[in-house]
Amino acid sequence: MKVFLLLVCFLVAGIVRAQHALVIQSDFGTKDGAVAAMRGIAFGVAPTLSIFDLSQENTPFNIWEAAYRLKQTAEFWPAGTVFMSVVDPGVGTERSSIVLQTQSGHFFVGPDNGTWTLVAEELGIAAVRRIDEKTNRRAGSDKSYTFHGRDIYAYVGARLASGKITYEQVGPLLEPQVVRLPYERAAVAGGVLTGAIPQLDFQYGNVWTNIPDSLFDEIKPAFGDKFLVVILHEGKEAYRGVLPYVRTFGEVPAGAPLLYLNSLLNVSFALNRGSFSQKHGLASGGGWTVRLERAP
Amino acid sequence: MKVFLLLVCFLVAGIVRAQHALVIQSDFGTKDGAVAAMRGIAFGVAPTLSIFDLSQENTPFNIWEAAYRLKQTAEFWPAGTVFMSVVDPGVGTERSSIVLQTQSGHFFVGPDNGTWTLVAEELGIAAVRRIDEKTNRRAGSDKSYTFHGRDIYAYVGARLASGKITYEQVGPLLEPQVVRLPYERAAVAGGVLTGAIPQLDFQYGNVWTNIPDSLFDEIKPAFGDKFLVVILHEGKEAYRGVLPYVRTFGEVPAGAPLLYLNSLLNVSFALNRGSFSQKHGLASGGGWTVRLERAP
Amino acid sequence: MKVFLLLVCFLVAGIVRAQHALVIQSDFGTKDGAVAAMRGIAFGVAPTLSIFDLSQENTPFNIWEAAYRLKQTAEFWPAGTVFMSVVDPGVGTERSSIVLQTQSGHFFVGPDNGTWTLVAEELGIAAVRRIDEKTNRRAGSDKSYTFHGRDIYAYVGARLASGKITYEQVGPLLEPQVVRLPYERAAVAGGVLTGAIPQLDFQYGNVWTNIPDSLFDEIKPAFGDKFLVVILHEGKEAYRGVLPYVRTFGEVPAGAPLLYLNSLLNVSFALNRGSFSQKHGLASGGGWTVRLERAP
Repeated sequence: MKVFLLLVCFLVAGIVRAQHALVIQSDFGTKDGAVAAMRGIAFGVAPTLSIFDLSQENTPFNIWEAAYRLKQTAEFWPAGTVFMSVVDPGVGTERSSIVLQTQSGHFFVGPDNGTWTLVAEELGIAAVRRIDEKTNRRAGSDKSYTFHGRDIYAYVGARLASGKITYEQVGPLLEPQVVRLPYERAAVAGGVLTGAIPQLDFQYGNVWTNIPDSLFDEIKPAFGDKFLVVILHEGKEAYRGVLPYVRTFGEVPAGAPLLYLNSLLNVSFALNRGSFSQKHGLASGGGWTVRLERAP
Repeated sequence: MKVFLLLVCFLVAGIVRAQHALVIQSDFGTKDGAVAAMRGIAFGVAPTLSIFDLSQENTPFNIWEAAYRLKQTAEFWPAGTVFMSVVDPGVGTERSSIVLQTQSGHFFVGPDNGTWTLVAEELGIAAVRRIDEKTNRRAGSDKSYTFHGRDIYAYVGARLASGKITYEQVGPLLEPQVVRLPYERAAVAGGVLTGAIPQLDFQYGNVWTNIPDSLFDEIKPAFGDKFLVVILHEGKEAYRGVLPYVRTFGEVPAGAPLLYLNSLLNVSFALNRGSFSQKHGLASGGGWTVRLERAP
Repeated sequence: MKVFLLLVCFLVAGIVRAQHALVIQSDFGTKDGAVAAMRGIAFGVAPTLSIFDLSQENTPFNIWEAAYRLKQTAEFWPAGTVFMSVVDPGVGTERSSIVLQTQSGHFFVGPDNGTWTLVAEELGIAAVRRIDEKTNRRAGSDKSYTFHGRDIYAYVGARLASGKITYEQVGPLLEPQVVRLPYERAAVAGGVLTGAIPQLDFQYGNVWTNIPDSLFDEIKPAFGDKFLVVILHEGKEAYRGVLPYVRTFGEVPAGAPLLYLNSLLNVSFALNRGSFSQKHGLASGGGWTVRLERAP
């Protein structure tokens, strides 16, 4: 009887324990089989593991975009969630393979190539460990050099998320730092806010800045107030306009421009039911900056 | 011992209960992180919940298409399934946020903006409740006005699907009705069937009408019979042809046209291994109608 | 007490048993609702079943591509995994609906139209059974002729993966063979390797051959060695170049060409951070062949 109860206990525990998700990001696209191969490895490690996509459609080789996607989503998953990200133009070269633990209790598995820039800043670095490929690599993968996502990251990510290994068993501790991509910080001085355009809202053409609501609050905005917005590319003016600050798109007529806080509470610009970026020929990333102040 | 058994019971029940799926539809696309943020909220509510995509690639702002996708899929999921749909150009404006319960036992979570037109008709309205945002909104989301999909719908959808709240706890009962998009009903008179083209079969270019098999049966079709099909756009003839009624595409040569019942048992037109809509420049939605009778 | 224990046992067993995944491939795309309808049927059969996408974005009607995707991924899933593939231009015609069991212990559900060519060869045929549509078809689907993916394959695939039926209950045994698509085998003679280009690595533009590492080994390659590569289309030269054999992309400068073993350990060609196929106008499939030898 006791044996039986222990068995039940063990079975139940095995199921209940696997309550941390593995969330996968890559630039492999969904027409190919590469993502399914990674899912298969993870499922083979732990059949009760919950496996999700962040996105598999990152722009190929665009590490900055991958970094932004993680910032955009990680905080909405519970502590313990394991993210793996494979945007890895340097696969097989000397960049390290690491697992970052943040102070928020999330884990991030993949190459240390800048991908972790934004989550390291926003969620805080708790520890960094190098993946020990002797103990944490899919059996039989030693002749494969170009698919660490399948052979290492999916394998170790699934083992960590399912509790088959502890964080300590990932590998040796490194200095608590990650490779950081450079970018322009948001700032305020003399009533003028400055910042960058880290990402567009692709699907709708909205323009997202990296100016947070806390900084915006310093110039004491109220809904309905008007702001002068200047967007620059490599220092040259690409857009200039006066936009009303609104709660939500429907407060201006269809086609009209507006300033709002996006879902990450960053200052953003849009047209109601139109594409702000397309209309004005705007993009995001290196060289794109913004300046913002109360309309005169 | 009893405590132990109760504990086991509780654990098992917790797992077994979460047998209703949450099925997510949006127009956010899969290049962005918005869908992953919604999945994270839902997973955080209930780690054993089964979370699926309907599609995240609805045409932006196209409420009619969202309505059709729900009609196309809901009946193939078991009763108790919770669908959330976020095609919501009016987010933050006065449209209500509701949960519709259909007579078929399915639940539909999202804005009351026309999205529920077709499932309300086909599955029948059992009840409509307004989402009480005081009790059913993600903690800490009160400064976010533009992402109800993440802050409200994923949260309440996951709570409902996992049994953490009952349907009654969603919020107060409303009148049992939803906002309906207008469209042309299918009809038969004097041996002539008329209807609309609510949707194309995108991937293959087949043309789907809203004429059901039950109406088609009134003109007593037999496989092999020929039918005169006229497709109109804004009342002007866009296509005229005589098509054989067949069981399946392979019964005509490659490239030849045919009339068949699609997977929803609606009268449809196609080319075997070709694109009927592309060849003849046809589309779907408002203004597209069809007339059908036995070939003379 | 015994009843209670049996009940617990039954519940736990019901959950634990469903540890085989159902992996779905189709050419339906993700803008449509067809994939969600299939998922709904599978979930309705077994709410604890793990359901994954291989890819839903196969090129429409391209059976060869479907065959290659299965070869690319199946071996990375555990034995017992059930794959269903619905790239089925002949749906409703006389091709059989089968479940192939391979010697590796995987199952493959779908039309016998060439889709199983490569997994049959690589994983070995253990048995082939015809799906008995009298016992293994979704209830109420008898008037639907064009969506076997939903009405038959998702239904029987989920029943098999969840243990609701045994393999024997799928239907009667057939001869242990499947329909095979013709293709050019890889070969070596006099130090010259010949083969085909079964698939491109879409996302990055790398060119994959069907020459395995075991055959390549016969000409004793070492990292750093140079090889003369000639790619032909319908026998006419489309590309000629000398490429270094490297472990991984980063060993050559950005934009430079290289020869490597891809993640399936097949000889492949690429540019570091560029598109080899686009630069040289290369494609894959029928008519595309390759010749390879040591550079003089």
